[in-house]
Amino acid sequence: MTVPQRLTMVTLGVADVVRSTRFYESLGWRRTAGSEGEISFFQMQGSVLALFGRGALAHDVGPAAGPGGEAHGGQFRGVTLALNCDSRDEVDAVFAEWVEAGATAVKQPEAVFWGGYSSYVADPDGHLWEIAHNPMSPNDADGIMQLD
Amino acid sequence: MTVPQRLTMVTLGVADVVRSTRFYESLGWRRTAGSEGEISFFQMQGSVLALFGRGALAHDVGPAAGPGGEAHGGQFRGVTLALNCDSRDEVDAVFAEWVEAGATAVKQPEAVFWGGYSSYVADPDGHLWEIAHNPMSPNDADGIMQLD
Repeated sequence: MTVPQRLTMVTLGVADVVRSTRFYESLGWRRTAGSEGEISFFQMQGSVLALFGRGALAHDVGPAAGPGGEAHGGQFRGVTLALNCDSRDEVDAVFAEWVEAGATAVKQPEAVFWGGYSSYVADPDGHLWEIAHNPMSPNDADGIMQLD
Repeated sequence: MTVPQRLTMVTLGVADVVRSTRFYESLGWRRTAGSEGEISFFQMQGSVLALFGRGALAHDVGPAAGPGGEAHGGQFRGVTLALNCDSRDEVDAVFAEWVEAGATAVKQPEAVFWGGYSSYVADPDGHLWEIAHNPMSPNDADGIMQLD
């Protein structure tokens, strides 16, 4: 098996989700209906841009992000990339492939509060990738996450 | 005018482009033919992932990234997002729209060595966006950069 060559989502850690959401909306961008006060989503072509509290994002990454936000391989950068899979089993397999390729296992796959199944790995430079399954917003036939 | 809701490319600053390229290739990912030793491109669905030397990326951002990589609004995070436009005029207009919305003008639009026209802005949290025109890899009808 190979890992799907897929960039599902880019999440930017921000100080104030409401302020940042207003900023991007003032460009004429429209957030999706599923956006809540804690997180905002913007459907791009083929990917999703998310705005999430920087502290909440560090918490999601887990202890490896550190109290001061230090992640393995360098300081926590407040940016994560996501690769969404079609099932929990695929998350387990893809996570294992990354680790076998030399990625750092930052957070083992686990069921998470929002109803999904999520893990984190870091590439050789500490860039964080979330490997996840999101049953509420599954991938479409092209492997693209669709929000509404 | 509104700014196209578009995420063309994510660039990860890395310590060693060759090493990082091998890492992503070992996942089964294929870089595009246009990849050189200094930069590698991976065509995702709807976007492009690029690997570029961290120092070179900081240099591209310009003095605002600072000698130590400090960018306006926080430390240089070694990650940039790109929004590619269809012309130099559109770059100028989109750059102006971002600044009017409250973005920091990090680098004014200018012709760059690789034959394109590029600028940088920072969002309220210092996340860097390159607003660029790349005549060698124009956007397709869906606004997606196509590499080969």
